Amino acid sequence: MGKRPTRDDVAREAGTSTAVVSYVINEGPRPVSEETKQKVLAAIHKTGYMPNGIAKSLANGSSDTYALLVTDMANPFLAQMAQALEHELFSRNKTLLVGDSNDDPARQLELLEAFQRQQVSGLVWYGVDQPLPLNAIDSYPGTVVLINQPAGSPAGQQAGRRIRVEVNEYAEAQMATEHLISHGYQHLAMISGPKERLNSRERIRGWKAALRQADMEAGALISAPYTRQGGYDAALQIGEETDAVFVSNELQAMGFLAGLAASGRRAPDDVAVVAMNRTPAASYLVPSLTAVQLPHAQMAKRIAEVLIGNIVDVEDGGNTVDTGSRHGAKPAGAGVRLEPGKNSDDLECIGVNHTLVIGHSCGCTGR
Amino acid sequence: MGKRPTRDDVAREAGTSTAVVSYVINEGPRPVSEETKQKVLAAIHKTGYMPNGIAKSLANGSSDTYALLVTDMANPFLAQMAQALEHELFSRNKTLLVGDSNDDPARQLELLEAFQRQQVSGLVWYGVDQPLPLNAIDSYPGTVVLINQPAGSPAGQQAGRRIRVEVNEYAEAQMATEHLISHGYQHLAMISGPKERLNSRERIRGWKAALRQADMEAGALISAPYTRQGGYDAALQIGEETDAVFVSNELQAMGFLAGLAASGRRAPDDVAVVAMNRTPAASYLVPSLTAVQLPHAQMAKRIAEVLIGNIVDVEDGGNTVDTGSRHGAKPAGAGVRLEPGKNSDDLECIGVNHTLVIGHSCGCTGR
Repeated sequence: MGKRPTRDDVAREAGTSTAVVSYVINEGPRPVSEETKQKVLAAIHKTGYMPNGIAKSLANGSSDTYALLVTDMANPFLAQMAQALEHELFSRNKTLLVGDSNDDPARQLELLEAFQRQQVSGLVWYGVDQPLPLNAIDSYPGTVVLINQPAGSPAGQQAGRRIRVEVNEYAEAQMATEHLISHGYQHLAMISGPKERLNSRERIRGWKAALRQADMEAGALISAPYTRQGGYDAALQIGEETDAVFVSNELQAMGFLAGLAASGRRAPDDVAVVAMNRTPAASYLVPSLTAVQLPHAQMAKRIAEVLIGNIVDVEDGGNTVDTGSRHGAKPAGAGVRLEPGKNSDDLECIGVNHTLVIGHSCGCTGR
Repeated sequence: MGKRPTRDDVAREAGTSTAVVSYVINEGPRPVSEETKQKVLAAIHKTGYMPNGIAKSLANGSSDTYALLVTDMANPFLAQMAQALEHELFSRNKTLLVGDSNDDPARQLELLEAFQRQQVSGLVWYGVDQPLPLNAIDSYPGTVVLINQPAGSPAGQQAGRRIRVEVNEYAEAQMATEHLISHGYQHLAMISGPKERLNSRERIRGWKAALRQADMEAGALISAPYTRQGGYDAALQIGEETDAVFVSNELQAMGFLAGLAASGRRAPDDVAVVAMNRTPAASYLVPSLTAVQLPHAQMAKRIAEVLIGNIVDVEDGGNTVDTGSRHGAKPAGAGVRLEPGKNSDDLECIGVNHTLVIGHSCGCTGR
């Protein structure tokens, strides 16, 4: 760092004082004549003076900053993902800027604008709407990784690179439901998210597929917000005949267990529970929650590799038009495919995988 | 936005193509003659062209970006604080950059460096060590708000402004303990954080003060990490005689309730529980957790006001040396003091306050 040119070097080159250099850079507080300004600008250019990391960003058209846009930072699942990604980027000397859209499409758009103004080198977008309003980032030149964007939705072919992390929600829901069926439960209900969301629909499809395969009828399907209160309220609506429930979100499951307890029923004796998108909190619920877990650390590693341009094992899902990528990596449309295994034993061989983590809420005796 | 000069405007002014302007700004990919470079630089200056927010930052010596440094983004208490602060800054058209030190002092220092390189306009620091290694930010010119920094510790008088958010951990712990005493419990234990931390010591002082005031002997004091597992393990160590426990952190309390259940004891019938630093998750535990709550939203609002320079109701705790603040606000050493009231009825008149939120874990019948 000691060898980098300083404002003194610029002042010497321009034949001015260091203070004048600062006035030019800061546009004040004192006025500087146009002629002197031009001299200082030329000297800045000649010496290669860069005041700081931001100047470097300006020069390169990119920065060491990456952005993550999530719908709710206080959702433990998203907080955990943010943390894992921050960890991966940090280990590569990059900084992660986290923005929270508070599940609000308008705010989401404003945050996207802010990130583009900041000229972040790459963006990871866990979006509110599905499909995402990709036109909001049409002119954004960096890499964009889309999470929570279902299979088959358009990834876009605009200025930058678009990578989709495809989480197989359908298979994840199916795995959870199959576990309840394997226990011999007869009346399986489901707590889904809002039905207009594509990920809710994928989870419902997975639940129904597992039931159909076992030649069982679908029980009650209750749609609720992806919140603790949503799960709590849903528990109060579950009918007496229901002996097992697939809850499609961990926050909902936390509320569901509390709602069950409030209505005088116990899990798993009265109602068995399996959830999705597990975090470490599941182990400490009473009873401990059985839930399908995404491989956060592996996902974060892959996303970081994709963002920074060191891509490993990417399936090419698009054409090979030159998208102007600075990284020389694969163009728009490439996809990172994360497939669940049939059970946790497949974890090693498939590499990136869902896992069903057993707690007490499903009726298993192991923890 | 439509009136801002574009690269086309710069190209017209310089008498070059737009592509050449881009080559100068991006330092490539094609070479540009020195003469043309100078023309483009002069044209950039003349038109006032700013590629993005980073260019603006460079010009102003500051940005619209603020930073929050926390020890663990997946801790719901910190995630909630991050979210509240992001909300406040967003409503003021500012962006919040969140960094996670993972409770690691070395990583904390590297993040502080990254934030300084990014030239963030202000920093909110929830630190690992206590007292914080303030020399790491000696040359940082912006406003720094220190959270989790106990009363009496040095706030520093360096280049920037230093504001300390003083949470009265002592009074918060005392309030929680007094609630258990008011129920008539006789054998009060405490689960504290690591004893070398100043905030742990403040909480222990508060617990002891409440017991002393009631002329009661202190029960077992178990030191544990501020994690769910820490609380879980502590529950297994609580002796038979203990009928009530003050747990000094919500994550610990979640684990404590799970550990109690695993050891065949129930809250509050066998052991009553009150915790500190409540989040909305407390309502959905089984039993719902009684805990002291900090006013996140109000704290975040005050911090945002302090960061941006619109300070309201600050006690001056320092001298009035001109610290070179760009905001013209109070100098280094000023403190925002957050005092708890004696009970939740005081909330209105004191303004910013702790609140004891009643759940079932303390033996109260209300929720």
